[in-house]
Amino acid sequence: MEFHSFNPPVRTLMGPGPSDVHPRVLEALSRPTIGHLDPRFVAMMEEVKALLQYAFQTDNQLTFPVSAPGSAGMETCFANLVEPGDKVIVCRNGVFGGRMQENVERCGGVAVMVEDEWGRAVDPQKLEDALKANPDAKIVAFVHAETSTGAQSDARTLVKLAHRHDCLTIVDTVTSLGGTPVKVDVWGIDAVYSGTQKCLSCVPGLAPVSFNERAQEKIRSRGSRVQSWFLDLNLVMGYWGGGAQRSYHHTAPVNTLYALHESLLMLKAEGLENAWNRHQRHHLALRAGLEALGLRFIVPEEERLPQLNAVSIPEGVDDAAVRARLLEEYNLEIGAGLGALAGKVWRIGLMGHASRAENILLCVAALEAVLADMGAPIETGVALGAVQRALTAEA
Amino acid sequence: MEFHSFNPPVRTLMGPGPSDVHPRVLEALSRPTIGHLDPRFVAMMEEVKALLQYAFQTDNQLTFPVSAPGSAGMETCFANLVEPGDKVIVCRNGVFGGRMQENVERCGGVAVMVEDEWGRAVDPQKLEDALKANPDAKIVAFVHAETSTGAQSDARTLVKLAHRHDCLTIVDTVTSLGGTPVKVDVWGIDAVYSGTQKCLSCVPGLAPVSFNERAQEKIRSRGSRVQSWFLDLNLVMGYWGGGAQRSYHHTAPVNTLYALHESLLMLKAEGLENAWNRHQRHHLALRAGLEALGLRFIVPEEERLPQLNAVSIPEGVDDAAVRARLLEEYNLEIGAGLGALAGKVWRIGLMGHASRAENILLCVAALEAVLADMGAPIETGVALGAVQRALTAEA
Repeated sequence: MEFHSFNPPVRTLMGPGPSDVHPRVLEALSRPTIGHLDPRFVAMMEEVKALLQYAFQTDNQLTFPVSAPGSAGMETCFANLVEPGDKVIVCRNGVFGGRMQENVERCGGVAVMVEDEWGRAVDPQKLEDALKANPDAKIVAFVHAETSTGAQSDARTLVKLAHRHDCLTIVDTVTSLGGTPVKVDVWGIDAVYSGTQKCLSCVPGLAPVSFNERAQEKIRSRGSRVQSWFLDLNLVMGYWGGGAQRSYHHTAPVNTLYALHESLLMLKAEGLENAWNRHQRHHLALRAGLEALGLRFIVPEEERLPQLNAVSIPEGVDDAAVRARLLEEYNLEIGAGLGALAGKVWRIGLMGHASRAENILLCVAALEAVLADMGAPIETGVALGAVQRALTAEA
Repeated sequence: MEFHSFNPPVRTLMGPGPSDVHPRVLEALSRPTIGHLDPRFVAMMEEVKALLQYAFQTDNQLTFPVSAPGSAGMETCFANLVEPGDKVIVCRNGVFGGRMQENVERCGGVAVMVEDEWGRAVDPQKLEDALKANPDAKIVAFVHAETSTGAQSDARTLVKLAHRHDCLTIVDTVTSLGGTPVKVDVWGIDAVYSGTQKCLSCVPGLAPVSFNERAQEKIRSRGSRVQSWFLDLNLVMGYWGGGAQRSYHHTAPVNTLYALHESLLMLKAEGLENAWNRHQRHHLALRAGLEALGLRFIVPEEERLPQLNAVSIPEGVDDAAVRARLLEEYNLEIGAGLGALAGKVWRIGLMGHASRAENILLCVAALEAVLADMGAPIETGVALGAVQRALTAEA
């Protein structure tokens, strides 16, 4: 085996994440490494916490990025909040609800599943029925933005139902944070996790989390130790907690935190509401183009995530061949289907820095060119005009 | 709170890690992000695995970097290998042996502690006694290179003893890998973990691990599920395992893996033996300088790690004040004591790219200048000559 420096191709990342990373963020990433206990670094950590509070719209003191990808953020919530024997109601309308079930069971909890069709939002009525049928349930967990389908659930309503039945809530906002409203305090979410590589447009490797006072009280009053040493919040907070007496727990991924700091600065400069509006505007333009090609969305309009667009693959079209040609000929990545939707849908992300007019046009143009060349049953000659009109109308 | 881009100071990192990162590695880190399932990225992952096999001196197929810091590498080994009720003999001669005990207990195992003085190697006789007294033990765990003290244990002998009593071995090589010999196959280590921010001189955030066939067999034949979804090797290998059919498990920290690839290329270009010799040579020069100042090592010479030099803080000297002045006046970071050694020792790292002649001279010169200025009881005017002579003699 011969080894050479790895020079990645320059892709346009319109899959389900990672999304395009702004050059400013990559530049910040490569700044000189300093110690994870350096006073200058510790000051930057305080800023990261404050900026994450802004992104999550929360005053929770316990708000920080876990030193590992989004899946570890999920595990941080479950490992700290679920004790052996705890009953947890998990709403599943895609892959990530299933992962929540795995987490509950591996923590020794009992998962009660509330099933919804993939591609639809969680049905509040079904959750309410489950809450009534399980008065001993302690936690409700659901995915706000299902990355596997592009469906968005009504987090505020689901949290309200859970609280009415005296349950804590764990909410997955991996794909929503920064792209569509996430209001942790207004909605009353107790524990929330996200990822950095979606609408925050940072590199992958960190999982922002936030816990309110009620969730912290549950953690403090545990009868058993958290089963993970690495994710035990009682220990992690010795490092991420406030104050000058910061003590070593693990070595934080220093450079990735520089990058997160920079991407959060950019989000704050744009303003959350402007970012949400941009994602919505660009979703409408992409929708216009995709529908003009004849592609159909799998999620009903009112339940759609603007930043993740799942469309059915037309009859007779070779899924893998199309994605390979987009990648090889146009350096364009779109996402495959996941789980039960593998081979059936494409997932087109418009997340963070990737949510730009030029990306929408490239994606629609490349799909039209490649699909037409492969003899797929699509409309040609009308999609670009539809995108242009939508962008102009929305501007 | 006002926020600005974070521009870190340029430090010389001579603590217990992170160590100085070479500009080539920082540059690789900032290359454009691509997808974690992009065929070009997958090809690079194969190279990372092969390069890690070289670094660990192993043919183990199951060799890859965990997507989180070294502590998560430790947890990967324990969570996958220890089942509830398993008896594990843990040798403790510093902080990280204690962390191993935490891991065993949180996995439901029973930890039998073999205690050695902090600053000394693990005593093989004590391990043998423990093995004889605990014929039902299944695993022996120890730290090859104790980052908290700078002591190096005889891994080969300890592994041989464990195997004689039919135990698997888990070995912490966080601080040794790349700096002092680690020979996984020749020594017969069953499961090993490390970190990227020590002698590999990469940024923090990844934990290289390797498991031999015997360890894998123990994982395959588990009677219970691995308690961590994120670290479950049965799942992780769907992504890191060989073959084209690579499936999504979590989103890998793409850019940090670029950096690890580059740092491993640099290690391979230098050659492992040359890297080991460089660390040893520079240790001798640093030792000459520190001893000329009158500072005393806490670890006996034959048990010392060349890359981590722990010396006693002279009587009456203000630990924190000295480290703060080194940082503020000379941008030099050295390490504080950890655990029982807090306030008693300094830990001076010469790891990876930080192990350079200019760093040794800077460190000794800065210590002399600051300690003398603070009226500490040290020898002045002789240390720099001692460093120079040692470097010349060794060259």
